[in-house]
Amino acid sequence: MTGEAFRFDLIARDGEARLGLVTTGRGAIRTPAFMPVGTGGTVKAMYMDQVRALGSDIILGNTYHLMLRPGAERVARLGGLHEFARWPHSILTDSGGFQVMSLAKLRKLTEAGVTFRSHIDGSVHEMSPERSIEIQGLLGSDIQMQLDECVALPAKPDEIERAMELSLRWAERCKVAFGDQPPRAMFGIVQGGDSVELRLRSARALAAMELKGYAVGGLAVGEPQEVMLAMLEATCPELPLTKPRYLMGVGTPDDIVKSVARGIDMFDCVMPTRAGRHGLAYTRRGKVNLRNARHADDHRPLDEESDCPAARDYSRAYLHHLVRSQEALGAMLLTWNNLAYYQRLMADLRAAIASETFSEKTALIAAEWERGDLPPL
Amino acid sequence: MTGEAFRFDLIARDGEARLGLVTTGRGAIRTPAFMPVGTGGTVKAMYMDQVRALGSDIILGNTYHLMLRPGAERVARLGGLHEFARWPHSILTDSGGFQVMSLAKLRKLTEAGVTFRSHIDGSVHEMSPERSIEIQGLLGSDIQMQLDECVALPAKPDEIERAMELSLRWAERCKVAFGDQPPRAMFGIVQGGDSVELRLRSARALAAMELKGYAVGGLAVGEPQEVMLAMLEATCPELPLTKPRYLMGVGTPDDIVKSVARGIDMFDCVMPTRAGRHGLAYTRRGKVNLRNARHADDHRPLDEESDCPAARDYSRAYLHHLVRSQEALGAMLLTWNNLAYYQRLMADLRAAIASETFSEKTALIAAEWERGDLPPL
Repeated sequence: MTGEAFRFDLIARDGEARLGLVTTGRGAIRTPAFMPVGTGGTVKAMYMDQVRALGSDIILGNTYHLMLRPGAERVARLGGLHEFARWPHSILTDSGGFQVMSLAKLRKLTEAGVTFRSHIDGSVHEMSPERSIEIQGLLGSDIQMQLDECVALPAKPDEIERAMELSLRWAERCKVAFGDQPPRAMFGIVQGGDSVELRLRSARALAAMELKGYAVGGLAVGEPQEVMLAMLEATCPELPLTKPRYLMGVGTPDDIVKSVARGIDMFDCVMPTRAGRHGLAYTRRGKVNLRNARHADDHRPLDEESDCPAARDYSRAYLHHLVRSQEALGAMLLTWNNLAYYQRLMADLRAAIASETFSEKTALIAAEWERGDLPPL
Repeated sequence: MTGEAFRFDLIARDGEARLGLVTTGRGAIRTPAFMPVGTGGTVKAMYMDQVRALGSDIILGNTYHLMLRPGAERVARLGGLHEFARWPHSILTDSGGFQVMSLAKLRKLTEAGVTFRSHIDGSVHEMSPERSIEIQGLLGSDIQMQLDECVALPAKPDEIERAMELSLRWAERCKVAFGDQPPRAMFGIVQGGDSVELRLRSARALAAMELKGYAVGGLAVGEPQEVMLAMLEATCPELPLTKPRYLMGVGTPDDIVKSVARGIDMFDCVMPTRAGRHGLAYTRRGKVNLRNARHADDHRPLDEESDCPAARDYSRAYLHHLVRSQEALGAMLLTWNNLAYYQRLMADLRAAIASETFSEKTALIAAEWERGDLPPL
């Protein structure tokens, strides 16, 4: 814990793409950054040492999961989430709102907040903007998110507008609840669905609040990629240049490249970890399904040029066998491979922005995806 | 692969306990040795590097599982099990007979061998003594086991005798099938249930075959520990002093200590790995159930004096949380802890035999188990 004050340094730009450095009381985060998802205090099937060694500067924790199990007050008594999960670097927590909407039962949403039943044991919980910030503080989160309401797309315009306006009022309350914590930040969340007009209103209102950072929420929730990118093109220019921008829950490698090109600095997504538990590998040649019988006799590794042992040192035949046999090691190796690929991609994007070769580099990356996996043996 | 010829060096004795060194074409195995079980080409929830770093010189592979998936001929085409699973050290394989009896469907046993249906896909397979040795050769096993028939106890004396006699005839056929392979060994298996007389007849007949090593099978299959130990006391003196002795499928730390005291050199058991996947930790203070609510707020590690990070660096509260949440990391950490404990126990036993302090050391170990786990906070 360095205890330094939270800040964002914009180091370089290449078009709209930005190279930066977020500093929290726990250290530096090189941006564009990918944050592995550590839902319940663990990045599934990984040791934290491995997560760090891949170049992760920050992980994400889910407030909803952690408040239900093991409980925010318990985590606080045990020294906070960093100590509990043995991750001494930065942690961002979501507000819990997204999972309340997607996982919890019997939700009731009012101006005050949301009441819901736990999907684990049916117990009743209340979540207000103030309680969300309180929980994130108990967890010890370095970057906390405002409570917001995220509507699934497609949705009716008046429903999107109502949720966006509510989210703005909740942002004000979260700002007050968060108060003055120099080493930490509270980010506001731009909502507005697939409406440019609503996105602009949301972004401008949040910018006026002078928060420490801004997220774009409510995207990658069912809409086509073009819609998501159009929303980013409308939103990013409204956000202060000197604040970090986080696109929540996104996405595929292609989504990330195209969002960095539009000015996004931070990402989180369950794809690399979830896919790893389902036999899918992300590689520089695209996505490889290890369940496929074509790999059964293939002695070649996933990617002989990778620095990651999971990609470089194990045969596809062995990975195929592990996946087919539902062995834990299959999930361990493919999650490792996938996070390694994501972090390598982020490092490549940062280097390209630094050398002002972003468009050339991303064209090469896309061409390699396009060429596809090795031909069968 | 050193290519050295298989041999056993008896280095020291303390009472009946033996300190030794088994050499295979793949290297040395310090005995008494515990062999982690790598059923289907993976020690579940572990990286092979970790297994090795704990001091494992040899792992066990299950012929039944591997012949069904991914298939012995496939493993051979891929360079053998060592290459496939990335374990370059010694491997012992069982004959497949035990799992045929416990897992397969529609078994039919004759003098020739056994016909069965796969528990995975229902396909029909034949397993003769010759085919078992052929499969173990295709896998590249360094220490191969004869096909035998193991009866669950309690059983009728004539049933035990019939199976024991059949196992002796199969041992002869396996010896012929194995032929002359200097870097590798084929072990015979003493059977005879809970009958001293049958155990003696089996051990003497096998000793007369001049095999490279001897296993004691058909124990820890439902009988009390005293019966198992009585069988060892009867059997071990009949086995050649200069050959390694392997007690199959055993056991708890207490079983192992008492069996080493009676002259056993090698062990395998699923307990440390299986228990690790069910929230149970083996420690020098006995068995600890991490599911228990007493650990929910306990910041202390499993064993602050352990060399193993899983035992030393993670709080019981975190382990409890992972186990309750069914997180993969829970199984990863507890399996690691358990194998570390088993291998540390074996190293302690070896050191005690070397310094002729076996009975004192094992009394101390038992006293620590007896004292039990740390009192609750």
